[in-house]
Amino acid sequence: MKAYHEMSRQELLEEQAALELQFNEIKKKKLKLDMSRGKPSYSQLELSNEMMDVLDSHSYFNDETGTDCRNYGILAGIPEAKRLMGEMSEVGPDDMIIFGNSSLNIMFDTVSRSFTHGVCGATPWHKLDRVKFLCPVPGYDRHFRITEYFGIEMINIPMSETGPDMDLVEQYVQSDPAVKGIWCTPKYSNPQGYSYSDETVRHFAALTPAAEDFRIYWDNAYSIHHLYEDPEEQDVILEILEECRKAGHPDIVFKFISTSKVTFPGSGIAALAASKRNLEDIRKHMAVQTIGHDKMNQLRHVRFFGNLANMQQHMHRHAEILRPKFEAVEETFERELGGLEIGEWTKPKGGYFISFDSLDGCAKAIVAKCAEAGVKLTEAGATYPYGKDPRDRNIRIAPSFPEPQELQRAAAIFVLSTKLVSIQKYLGEMA
Amino acid sequence: MKAYHEMSRQELLEEQAALELQFNEIKKKKLKLDMSRGKPSYSQLELSNEMMDVLDSHSYFNDETGTDCRNYGILAGIPEAKRLMGEMSEVGPDDMIIFGNSSLNIMFDTVSRSFTHGVCGATPWHKLDRVKFLCPVPGYDRHFRITEYFGIEMINIPMSETGPDMDLVEQYVQSDPAVKGIWCTPKYSNPQGYSYSDETVRHFAALTPAAEDFRIYWDNAYSIHHLYEDPEEQDVILEILEECRKAGHPDIVFKFISTSKVTFPGSGIAALAASKRNLEDIRKHMAVQTIGHDKMNQLRHVRFFGNLANMQQHMHRHAEILRPKFEAVEETFERELGGLEIGEWTKPKGGYFISFDSLDGCAKAIVAKCAEAGVKLTEAGATYPYGKDPRDRNIRIAPSFPEPQELQRAAAIFVLSTKLVSIQKYLGEMA
Repeated sequence: MKAYHEMSRQELLEEQAALELQFNEIKKKKLKLDMSRGKPSYSQLELSNEMMDVLDSHSYFNDETGTDCRNYGILAGIPEAKRLMGEMSEVGPDDMIIFGNSSLNIMFDTVSRSFTHGVCGATPWHKLDRVKFLCPVPGYDRHFRITEYFGIEMINIPMSETGPDMDLVEQYVQSDPAVKGIWCTPKYSNPQGYSYSDETVRHFAALTPAAEDFRIYWDNAYSIHHLYEDPEEQDVILEILEECRKAGHPDIVFKFISTSKVTFPGSGIAALAASKRNLEDIRKHMAVQTIGHDKMNQLRHVRFFGNLANMQQHMHRHAEILRPKFEAVEETFERELGGLEIGEWTKPKGGYFISFDSLDGCAKAIVAKCAEAGVKLTEAGATYPYGKDPRDRNIRIAPSFPEPQELQRAAAIFVLSTKLVSIQKYLGEMA
Repeated sequence: MKAYHEMSRQELLEEQAALELQFNEIKKKKLKLDMSRGKPSYSQLELSNEMMDVLDSHSYFNDETGTDCRNYGILAGIPEAKRLMGEMSEVGPDDMIIFGNSSLNIMFDTVSRSFTHGVCGATPWHKLDRVKFLCPVPGYDRHFRITEYFGIEMINIPMSETGPDMDLVEQYVQSDPAVKGIWCTPKYSNPQGYSYSDETVRHFAALTPAAEDFRIYWDNAYSIHHLYEDPEEQDVILEILEECRKAGHPDIVFKFISTSKVTFPGSGIAALAASKRNLEDIRKHMAVQTIGHDKMNQLRHVRFFGNLANMQQHMHRHAEILRPKFEAVEETFERELGGLEIGEWTKPKGGYFISFDSLDGCAKAIVAKCAEAGVKLTEAGATYPYGKDPRDRNIRIAPSFPEPQELQRAAAIFVLSTKLVSIQKYLGEMA
């Protein structure tokens, strides 16, 4: 395949004409396909239906210490839920607080609490002139929205296959006391699917922040969300709490986790892991906010899975559904875009996304072109703070939700759109 | 019965000696009874067990518009949950947002959001020098804790059987722009069990606040929580949203409601009702905080009840369990304290509490005395902001949790303690 940048104006025009015919044919089909969010598909939801059977009117509703889960009480989660979520998160039950149905909500509340009351007794952020967060990019749009919402200044940190640029992170964190946090998706990162190397994790743990209330916001959203069953094909990262403890900085990390993409996205359980000191501080504030979260749903999850091994078995079934989708997208990209040198994409072994980088200045146009043919993508720019991708090239592909046949069509439209927009760019430059 | 204040020193000493014998006998039993919180009893929890049967692995999991409740989506609640909670709250489905499992959490978040971002575009409270809340007293300790947590100055407003002193409320609200809210439990109030009169509700609706962001925090916690089935014996209050609309002030109220004391306290659903403008503002902020609350639990509640009539039937069964407990306490009080003129108590027709006023300066001592004999009460002072009851006389009695026999014992200990502490007071005054 000849790369587009090597083609003559005439070749490009011919290619464009042929592609436009195809595109117009597809447009006529008035498709409506959604690759915008990391949403599990119908078949994945079906995998957890039996969780609805584990509690019925004849169940024993007490937790293992005898507390009736139907009633008020227990602020931080029933012991067996702490143990299960702890196993999932590679920490001990005492390192955890179990919350409601959404880890995003925990992250929001954590930032909100820091804003109103401060972290572990430090000055509340609303009393400071400037608060800054480091944002590895591309990253997760909902993280960025939280910090933007609280008026926190966001600083882009380039990502590589081994994690964020740690020299830059270290420089900011250790020199600027206004830097209070960094958003991380350390495993199968959103959107690239990269997993932080051991060196990166150790570098995080070794940070000596200028701000006493600096924390690493470690969103371990895809901790057991592998696409392949063979351990050789699974990413493994170091456990951050343990590394921070070993480095003598036990308090510098908040770790977030949930079962949103294990059981039901709207009805899972979410948790936070952190040091004793952090958890004590958080519980004190939580006690004003609520009497406790939904313990029946905690019980339901614990009784459904029993232990981590069963949860991992369950994740294999998710993988069987997800893997062909990722592979189908990657194959279409390889077949249709390989050699054209108009885009690069990641090939993750887990998580929910593929990250696509187009030629500079083409992402917005590609997303718009796809929309024209009925394919909804995450808005271009969304993977950057303030929605501003400085090179306008990153697009997040979420292959999970569409059914396989739909996905084929959506991927075909995506490559067609990418080709057309790229040709347009080259023709424009020639003019 | 001779009133204690009419007794001679000799008579009081004799009474004291006799009571102390009784008290010491009871102490030997080493009881452990809890009347501290408005916690449903085991038998009440049993009433909702069948809610655990309505969803199983073979259920249809879509809401009435076809949205799969297992997946992400729907920020503000499924339509049928809005309808049911709307019926329960006497408002329309469009006047509602459904949240998670706790109305306390909604209230906290509402105050927190006002603190960080302001109400409907008004200045965020953290930027103001002073923010004040009016607190009808005695009232609900957890309300007061939220406002105290955010450094909000709390002003006591006396309660009567018809509601707060509305002239005083009006004076504060209409003259001081720092007054941003008032905590209300308008029906079967916590702890007195008073219900606001029509005049009180209309007076609220007619308020023309000095602050544009003043809101009435209307915690309708006991909207359908009657103790008697006969409608004649049930309190009815005017619907506040409607009254505010009629008075031309649709935006001045937030109404909170939940099923915590209808189904399971830890696993109910909670909701907020307010004007279109308020709800739009709230949804905008909510969208940063979460993708959505637990829709499966919403579906579970809707399918369990179907409609308000069934919910009311269900509440009758609660009443059958609760009513004898309230009556037992009231009978013990009447029998043992009647005529002694050392205490007054309320006789609510619904809700979860009885309010007891001892002689001035005796409440803390009575609570301590009860604890000596193994009866745990809500801390004296808790029904006032900052835990400070200026006359040290109010005690909240929560009869719901203990089983009937335990309750008899607890009530006996309470009256014994009250007598002993009152005699002590009189003897002290004579010395």
